[in-house]
Amino acid sequence: MTNLITLTTDFGLVDGFVGVMKGVMLSINPSAQFVDITHDILPQNIQQGAFLLANSVPYFPRAAIHVCVVDPGVGSQRRAIAVQVGESTFIGPDNGVLSPAIAELATRTGATPRAYELNNPRYWLARVSTTFHGRDIFSPCAAHLSRGVPVEELGAPLEKWISLVPPAPVRRHDGALVGHVIYIDRYGNIVSDIDEQELQQLGTANIVVTIGGRRVKGLVRTYSDVEPEEFAALVGSPWKLEIARRNGNAAQALDAAVGDEVVVHPMK
Amino acid sequence: MTNLITLTTDFGLVDGFVGVMKGVMLSINPSAQFVDITHDILPQNIQQGAFLLANSVPYFPRAAIHVCVVDPGVGSQRRAIAVQVGESTFIGPDNGVLSPAIAELATRTGATPRAYELNNPRYWLARVSTTFHGRDIFSPCAAHLSRGVPVEELGAPLEKWISLVPPAPVRRHDGALVGHVIYIDRYGNIVSDIDEQELQQLGTANIVVTIGGRRVKGLVRTYSDVEPEEFAALVGSPWKLEIARRNGNAAQALDAAVGDEVVVHPMK
Amino acid sequence: MTNLITLTTDFGLVDGFVGVMKGVMLSINPSAQFVDITHDILPQNIQQGAFLLANSVPYFPRAAIHVCVVDPGVGSQRRAIAVQVGESTFIGPDNGVLSPAIAELATRTGATPRAYELNNPRYWLARVSTTFHGRDIFSPCAAHLSRGVPVEELGAPLEKWISLVPPAPVRRHDGALVGHVIYIDRYGNIVSDIDEQELQQLGTANIVVTIGGRRVKGLVRTYSDVEPEEFAALVGSPWKLEIARRNGNAAQALDAAVGDEVVVHPMK
Repeated sequence: MTNLITLTTDFGLVDGFVGVMKGVMLSINPSAQFVDITHDILPQNIQQGAFLLANSVPYFPRAAIHVCVVDPGVGSQRRAIAVQVGESTFIGPDNGVLSPAIAELATRTGATPRAYELNNPRYWLARVSTTFHGRDIFSPCAAHLSRGVPVEELGAPLEKWISLVPPAPVRRHDGALVGHVIYIDRYGNIVSDIDEQELQQLGTANIVVTIGGRRVKGLVRTYSDVEPEEFAALVGSPWKLEIARRNGNAAQALDAAVGDEVVVHPMK
Repeated sequence: MTNLITLTTDFGLVDGFVGVMKGVMLSINPSAQFVDITHDILPQNIQQGAFLLANSVPYFPRAAIHVCVVDPGVGSQRRAIAVQVGESTFIGPDNGVLSPAIAELATRTGATPRAYELNNPRYWLARVSTTFHGRDIFSPCAAHLSRGVPVEELGAPLEKWISLVPPAPVRRHDGALVGHVIYIDRYGNIVSDIDEQELQQLGTANIVVTIGGRRVKGLVRTYSDVEPEEFAALVGSPWKLEIARRNGNAAQALDAAVGDEVVVHPMK
Repeated sequence: MTNLITLTTDFGLVDGFVGVMKGVMLSINPSAQFVDITHDILPQNIQQGAFLLANSVPYFPRAAIHVCVVDPGVGSQRRAIAVQVGESTFIGPDNGVLSPAIAELATRTGATPRAYELNNPRYWLARVSTTFHGRDIFSPCAAHLSRGVPVEELGAPLEKWISLVPPAPVRRHDGALVGHVIYIDRYGNIVSDIDEQELQQLGTANIVVTIGGRRVKGLVRTYSDVEPEEFAALVGSPWKLEIARRNGNAAQALDAAVGDEVVVHPMK
C-alpha cells in the first residue's frame, strides 16, 4: 500500500486529461500523491514512453504505483494490465510500453513480475468510454490499489504480456560496436542504446563515434571537456553513450533521429 | 472545508505565474493540495476555459475549490466572484468562464448556486496589482476558504453572474441535427456540442456527419472500428459527437476550427 | 525544517528530468511537497532563471527550500551551493542564478545570507553523473535538508558566491530614465528593470516611454484604460514599468527583445 502514484502519458497538458485522471484518483483515495514523469510523449509513441518510464522508475521509491498511458489501441481488444514487481506496480495498456521498466526493476530487485488483466469492472468508473481508459479504467484501478485493494481483486492473473524487444547493439567483425539512437532530449543530446558496460568491454575509452557521416572523438568526461560548439562523446545521465554539442544542439547539427545508427570504433 | 484546490488558467507554465499562485496559497494554508487542470487555455479564450472546466469538474471530489482565471478584463470593473454549488466552490472573474461548470454541477447535484462578490479586501493580499488578480485576489480568497473561512466573509451576496450561453444544436426541418465544433484536442479529435442524448433522439446510430464539405459515416464504437487513416464519427470521452481520424489528425485533415458547423443526417 | 521544496529549471517537461528529481527527493523524504515555479527557462539562460526565481520567491512561505538548476557548467569546476537566508534555503549551481533571489530575500527579511559548498558526497546519490547534478547532487541535498539535516553537514562554509549584477537603470542629464527590457511574458508584455520607486522619483506619472522607436504615453493604471490594440505603459505585477498592448502582443508588435533599451521621459 502506497499513496505515491506516478503518471507518464502522451496526453499533453493542454486538454485537461491529466487533471481529470487526478480528480478520479482523489475521489477514490483522497491521500493519493502524484508525480508527473512526463505527459509529452509524442502521440502514440510507445517506444519513447517505454524508454522514459524505464529510465525514470529506478529513481523512485520502490513502494509506488506507476501509471503509463500511451495507448493507440484504446477501445480495441488490447488488454489493460497491472504488473507487480516487488513493492512496485505498473498499470497501463498491454502494448509493450510498460515492459522495459518492468524488466529494469525485476533485474534490480530480483523480484519476479506478476501480471493481472484489469478485467474486474467493479474497480472501473461506472461508465467507461471507448477512448479514454486513462480516466475510466487505469486511474480508478490505480487509486483502489493505492488504498490497499489487493491486485488479485482487480482482475485475473496473466501468464504473458507484450514485451518490446528493441534491437540490441552488436559487435562487428572489425571490432566496432554498432548501436542506435534511442532518444533525443530537449538540449539536442543524442542518447544511444550502447551502455556503459558495453563500452567498457571495448577495453579502451579512446574511441571514435560515427554518426550521420560525422566522426566524434571520445570518451570525454563531461561537456566542458570540449571547446564551445564542439561535439562530445560521453556517458550521459541515463548511463549510456551520448553525443552532445557544447553550448549547442547536437541532434540538429547532425540531423539525427531516433533509430539512426551509431558506430563506436575502439582506437587501441 | 477542503484542502483540494484545482487550477485552470491561461497563464502557461513558462512565466512562473502558477507557481506564485501556489506560493500565495501555501502561505495562507500550508495544507492546501493542488491539482492543475490546465494552464494552456489560449490567452483570454473564455469559451475554451469554460469548456475544459465544465468537462473536468464532474470527475473531482465534490468537496473542492475550483479556481479558474481566464481574465481579459483584469483591473477593469469586472467583478471577482465565488460561487458555491453544494460542497464545491468556484472562484474566478465574473466573465462567464465559470458558468458552464456551475450549471453542470447544479444539474448533477440539484444544489442551488449561491454567488458572492470577492469585495472584502481583508482576504486579498495586502498589495493588489491591476494585472494579476490570480495572485492578489483569487488565490488568497481560495486559500482562506480552504481553511474554513465562510464564503459570506469574502464578500457580499450577488443575485446574478454572467452566463455564457453557447448556441445549442438545432434540429432542421429535414431532420438533420446542426451543431458546432466546440473543441479540438491534442490528437486533432474534433469535439462537437451535440451530445449523446441528442444523437439518441435521432432514433438511429446509422448517420452521416458532414463537416468541412466531407462526409463521415457513423456511429462507430471506437477508433479501431475504422481502417488506419479513415475518419470516424463516435461518442467521445466528453460524451459528445466527435470526429476522429485513426492514427491521424482529423482537425488538420479537415481544416476544422472551433465554431465550424457539424451536420448530422440520420439514415433510417 | 520544512517539507516545501520549489523547483525552477531549464529542463522542460518532456524528458522526465523533473519527475526523476522528485522521485529522488521522495526516496529520501516521503513527506516532501513540491511546487514547480517553472521548468521552461530557455536552455542555459541564467539571466531568465534568476529573474523568475527572484520574482516568485517573495510569494512563498519563508520556510522553504528553493532548488534552481540552470546549469551550463554542469560537470565542470563550478561549485554546487546552498545559501540560507533566514528560514529559506537556496540550492543550485554557483553561477549567479540564485543571487537576485538571495538579495531580494535578504533585503526583505534583514537576514544575512550564509553560503555552503555542497561538497559532502555523503548527501549525494551514490553514483554521480557529470551531466545531471539536478538529480545526483541538488535533489538529494535538498531532500536531506528538508528532513532536518543541518546545512553545515552538506559542506563547507563559503565566503563568496557569484552574483549577477545586471546594469541598473540610469538617469540621463536631460532627466530621462534609461533602463532595459528584462523579461517578456507569455502575453507579450514587456517588463523593464525600472521599478516603481524609480518612476516615483521622476515626480510625475505623466510620462512618455520610448521603446523600439515607438512612443507610448503613460502611466495608465491597467490594460483596460487604453483602447483595444493600443499600447499601455503601466506598473505591472512584478512592480516594474511594463509596456503592454490591450488584447494584443506588445513584444511582437514592437519587435522587442530582452536587453533592449527603454527610455522614460517625464512630462512635467
